Amino acid sequence: MEESVKIAIDIMGGDKSPDKNLEGINLFLKRNKNIKDVFFHIYGDEIQIKSKIGNFGYLKNNYKIHDTKIVVSDKLSALSTIKKGKNSSMWNSIHSQIDLSTDVTLSAGNTGVLLVMSKMILKTLEDVDKPALAGLWPNEINTNVVLDLGANVECSEKNLIDFSEMGAALFKSLFPNEKAKVALLNIGIEETKGTELLRGSYSKLKELVKFGDFEFNGYIEGNQITKGDSNIIVTDGFTGNVALKTAEGTANFLTKTLKESLSENLFSKISVIFSYFSLKKFKSKLDPRKYNGAILLGLKGPVVKSHGATDGLGFSYSVELCYKIAKGKLIEKIKKNLSNTKSLNEKT
Amino acid sequence: MEESVKIAIDIMGGDKSPDKNLEGINLFLKRNKNIKDVFFHIYGDEIQIKSKIGNFGYLKNNYKIHDTKIVVSDKLSALSTIKKGKNSSMWNSIHSQIDLSTDVTLSAGNTGVLLVMSKMILKTLEDVDKPALAGLWPNEINTNVVLDLGANVECSEKNLIDFSEMGAALFKSLFPNEKAKVALLNIGIEETKGTELLRGSYSKLKELVKFGDFEFNGYIEGNQITKGDSNIIVTDGFTGNVALKTAEGTANFLTKTLKESLSENLFSKISVIFSYFSLKKFKSKLDPRKYNGAILLGLKGPVVKSHGATDGLGFSYSVELCYKIAKGKLIEKIKKNLSNTKSLNEKT
Repeated sequence: MEESVKIAIDIMGGDKSPDKNLEGINLFLKRNKNIKDVFFHIYGDEIQIKSKIGNFGYLKNNYKIHDTKIVVSDKLSALSTIKKGKNSSMWNSIHSQIDLSTDVTLSAGNTGVLLVMSKMILKTLEDVDKPALAGLWPNEINTNVVLDLGANVECSEKNLIDFSEMGAALFKSLFPNEKAKVALLNIGIEETKGTELLRGSYSKLKELVKFGDFEFNGYIEGNQITKGDSNIIVTDGFTGNVALKTAEGTANFLTKTLKESLSENLFSKISVIFSYFSLKKFKSKLDPRKYNGAILLGLKGPVVKSHGATDGLGFSYSVELCYKIAKGKLIEKIKKNLSNTKSLNEKT
Repeated sequence: MEESVKIAIDIMGGDKSPDKNLEGINLFLKRNKNIKDVFFHIYGDEIQIKSKIGNFGYLKNNYKIHDTKIVVSDKLSALSTIKKGKNSSMWNSIHSQIDLSTDVTLSAGNTGVLLVMSKMILKTLEDVDKPALAGLWPNEINTNVVLDLGANVECSEKNLIDFSEMGAALFKSLFPNEKAKVALLNIGIEETKGTELLRGSYSKLKELVKFGDFEFNGYIEGNQITKGDSNIIVTDGFTGNVALKTAEGTANFLTKTLKESLSENLFSKISVIFSYFSLKKFKSKLDPRKYNGAILLGLKGPVVKSHGATDGLGFSYSVELCYKIAKGKLIEKIKKNLSNTKSLNEKT
């Protein structure tokens, strides 16, 4: 029998914890009844957890509670949190990758603190300058990996190359049967467009594709992100964060305006009844909870950040992401891709 | 009687010209029958224009054709276009601001060439380092001015301050009864967030608001652009271009998915009949053609760039924008705002 995937979970992170986190694990197991090879290391207040875990019937003989009284607070500064946060549920769930060889850590706690703690404990991979935060984003064909989403406000060529290699590894570990196609986010598609940083990264990536880890589609513009012709969208953390949030804002604005339109008179209200199932499917297809979970790439172990404000369903998709990353051997794939860059650099 | 607003139009720029351009002027006049104080200087091939202008009944005694045989081509490089493009319909329509004291120029031709020609002919305002391209963007309350949309890939503090002053002037010339509220686009709202450039601009803008040209709301994130709490969104040309196009792409993706959902079965098809008017209103409210027209700010005269691929309706909104800018005394307002920055700088 294959060994189980060991997922370490900070059960106290985010709003409405530990309830929504426990509900998330439960929903993941309920949705994936065929998955038997998974074990949860749950970090948090044992008394609270034990009083609630009975409500979640799929959590049975497939978990261990590690009693952890300290919880990382959102109200303190990152620095003082980290000082006080040793032996917190967040800290210990990350540290379990060293102590217990867990495969991946999941938290819905403070992003900044999670980034710093993860770097401190797991350390950055040898060939990586800066870790990046990658997100999943629906497109017309399947799903994009977009990075960096805000871990690095300013980036170098080396960073963008690393992001491409790591993003491609993440994509292949999630979608093993699809081709990884990298593109750099720019303000035009001609080779001469954009910043010096982008032009430099462009020519290096053109060399790199010879190693066959991924295809390189050159530049894309913001309006092509959701097309699906490219599925790994690489950019610096400032631009990536603005693009992600602008897309979120636009989607909210549109659905709000649509909702207002559809409830403004009797006819449109009747229409909602007729289109109920289609609109439900529309909503479900683009439900942001299905894409919940940002992946911290570039450390010696994988860490997933769930949105703090998500609900049980959203958390369950982050759990699923953890499982897929571990099964897809993300870290091995990243190391392999990075070694290709290294050999290219040694040649040139 | 007040003197007429004189709008110079490159009638040959963009797809399907001169037809859609003429149709656009006609639609503007049809929609605004109360507007009598407007006169069009039309630059292009007189024979073509004369053969078509009879179809557009609102163009009567309110225009003059300036025969111009050369048309700026999209296929040549910017440099060779500019060499060959002197005395083109684009060049002459800009130059009319000097020769004939026209108030504003409108073209749907190549953006890069229009920027360069406009700078060459009209010159940059004394206190401005770099002109910027500003766009209009719907929000939940009214309309945003967003700049820079791509004229300046890299920006300085001085640039962002200029953009704020010029954006506020544009907003007030379009919406004289509303408060101008500037915000800097960033990846967080805390004062410490973002790049050094943003932090520097932030503290200068905090000083500037004492002059009362506009309110300053500090930073906003991408998901707040459409909220309407701020209505002048300032950023560098790279970020602005990515944000604008990402919003466009997201909107297209959502409406496409919605359309597919609403045509997938009989019930949903029936629903479309019932909600026809509401959906039409929804579509009309967010119709990008209503926001067509980017404004080149920072030159001694105003130049408006229409989307090249828009239709007659889209072009008509660019004509309307030209009219409003001229009536709202944009250049005077810009000069006034900039003089305030100058006196601040002299004090410090």
